[in-house]
Amino acid sequence: MAAAIVGQDRFQLSQAITMAESQIDTDIASYEQLTNILSHYTPSVSIRIAISGAPGVGKSTFIEQFGLHLLSLGKRVAVLAIDPSSSVTHGSILGDKTRMDQLSNHPSAYIRPSAAGLTLGGVHQATRESISLCEYAGYDIILIETVGVGQSETIASSMSDIFVLLLIPGGGDEIQGIKRGIVELADIVIVNKADTGREDLANQSKKAYENALSLFKHPLKGWKVPVLLASGYYAKGLDALWRELVYYTNLAEASGFTIKKRTQQELEWLHKVVEYEFHKKISKNTVLSDTIVQAESDIKSHKASSQKIINQVKSIIRGL
Amino acid sequence: MAAAIVGQDRFQLSQAITMAESQIDTDIASYEQLTNILSHYTPSVSIRIAISGAPGVGKSTFIEQFGLHLLSLGKRVAVLAIDPSSSVTHGSILGDKTRMDQLSNHPSAYIRPSAAGLTLGGVHQATRESISLCEYAGYDIILIETVGVGQSETIASSMSDIFVLLLIPGGGDEIQGIKRGIVELADIVIVNKADTGREDLANQSKKAYENALSLFKHPLKGWKVPVLLASGYYAKGLDALWRELVYYTNLAEASGFTIKKRTQQELEWLHKVVEYEFHKKISKNTVLSDTIVQAESDIKSHKASSQKIINQVKSIIRGL
Repeated sequence: MAAAIVGQDRFQLSQAITMAESQIDTDIASYEQLTNILSHYTPSVSIRIAISGAPGVGKSTFIEQFGLHLLSLGKRVAVLAIDPSSSVTHGSILGDKTRMDQLSNHPSAYIRPSAAGLTLGGVHQATRESISLCEYAGYDIILIETVGVGQSETIASSMSDIFVLLLIPGGGDEIQGIKRGIVELADIVIVNKADTGREDLANQSKKAYENALSLFKHPLKGWKVPVLLASGYYAKGLDALWRELVYYTNLAEASGFTIKKRTQQELEWLHKVVEYEFHKKISKNTVLSDTIVQAESDIKSHKASSQKIINQVKSIIRGL
Repeated sequence: MAAAIVGQDRFQLSQAITMAESQIDTDIASYEQLTNILSHYTPSVSIRIAISGAPGVGKSTFIEQFGLHLLSLGKRVAVLAIDPSSSVTHGSILGDKTRMDQLSNHPSAYIRPSAAGLTLGGVHQATRESISLCEYAGYDIILIETVGVGQSETIASSMSDIFVLLLIPGGGDEIQGIKRGIVELADIVIVNKADTGREDLANQSKKAYENALSLFKHPLKGWKVPVLLASGYYAKGLDALWRELVYYTNLAEASGFTIKKRTQQELEWLHKVVEYEFHKKISKNTVLSDTIVQAESDIKSHKASSQKIINQVKSIIRGL
């Protein structure tokens, strides 16, 4: 399987990701073996790009066209989706088989929907493993699509080199449906659907966001968050985005920003794994998991002071 | 001790907070008893206000003057500081005894510096407990001072009703020294040091931030983040801030926003406590804590693929 993945076999790659998502003991053991073998190979030098935006912003059309543009430049493109809500609704972004038809049929592209039936922690872990697997499979552009509701953005930004936010012409956050704190985190902003007849509104939006973003400090020295006009539907502005990405990547690499950021992300990943594995242990301890469920319900119904409820839980954990 | 706290004895309140910060088993047991007894009393109906801003923005002068203003309105004011760096440097904001002289000498005010020698998780827990204790001691305004570097803001916003950000006239984040994502989280923005001779610059800043913030959606329906001019030094703009706080509080309470937000915060507190207690258990397991320390060092030195290192840690936790 490791050799097949390195040999760019998409079916085996999919099987490996399914294994990474699995909670079955034999899968977990096999997956550990697989990653040990893979670690003898060299993964691709990739750019990991988070792409976010609220529903209706034209995200999938944009990603498909941008992906096709990258393919035309000789890149190999993987698209991974993060949608924690899929664990509840069993729906999934990218789940619709008819979406991204052109991209998914291309031999140098790989598209993976968000896993259904996982907890938030599970989605987090699985996506991070998927990125590694895609890099062993030689994908050099990893696009991480998120749904714009907050949790998926936090996950995506913890594992990407750069964060691209898609907006539409007109209005502020209220209209754009973006959660607080997201705009300020963007490294590149795209005003999508800047189509013929909407140029004025698109330009107004561009200017408003440029002004707003100019107030915020970017952690990469010398980087000023660009606001670009684009149209996924008419495949416009894609090369401008690519040039900004290349410029950003070069600037970040030359200054040591990339290696520092990735190392920091890997340390966070380690701590998340420790936390997640302990959470799994907790949920197997029925006394504790029942206590937590009861405490949650008592807090929600304001049955007692939350301080008292929480101190009781604390005391139970200490006694374990 | 419980009776003394409810009777507004500041010395006993301080002793109780010290107990909440302690890691000694007997203190932990005593503290649990104390909170059980306190839970039979009724805490104050408080407003919890996070006040943030980078060093140099005049935060302590502003907080002292604002605190004095609140005292003049008959309020009882507690000031708690969150400074996770104090665990490293053993320094502490509010640690300088000469600061906030007027406020700290007033019988209706209580000032507590950030605890030194605690981990980030420890600071988080201790501050949350301190808020509860101050409410049992009848303080109806809880001011939570933070240092503007990111971590302390996350903690403060997880336990406050409203977030006030202090800026100075001129410049954007770059000059203001504020971490990304903070401005967008503010519920009220103050341009401090809007003193005589700097009115033009202060007004320009006010306008720029008003424009920027108008793009962002506020979760409380009907609330538009105000940008106020003030001067801590000349005690100007303090009543305008108080009026905005009252208006916000009324709006948030009437719409059910406050109770929903506090319940959400209490659930997060519960989960943080569970996480923190497990972390303490981990650090007592030397095999695991050594493994984590080794893994951190291997990641930092890029000794092996982080995926492999992390999967080894995962496997050790599973085997525990």
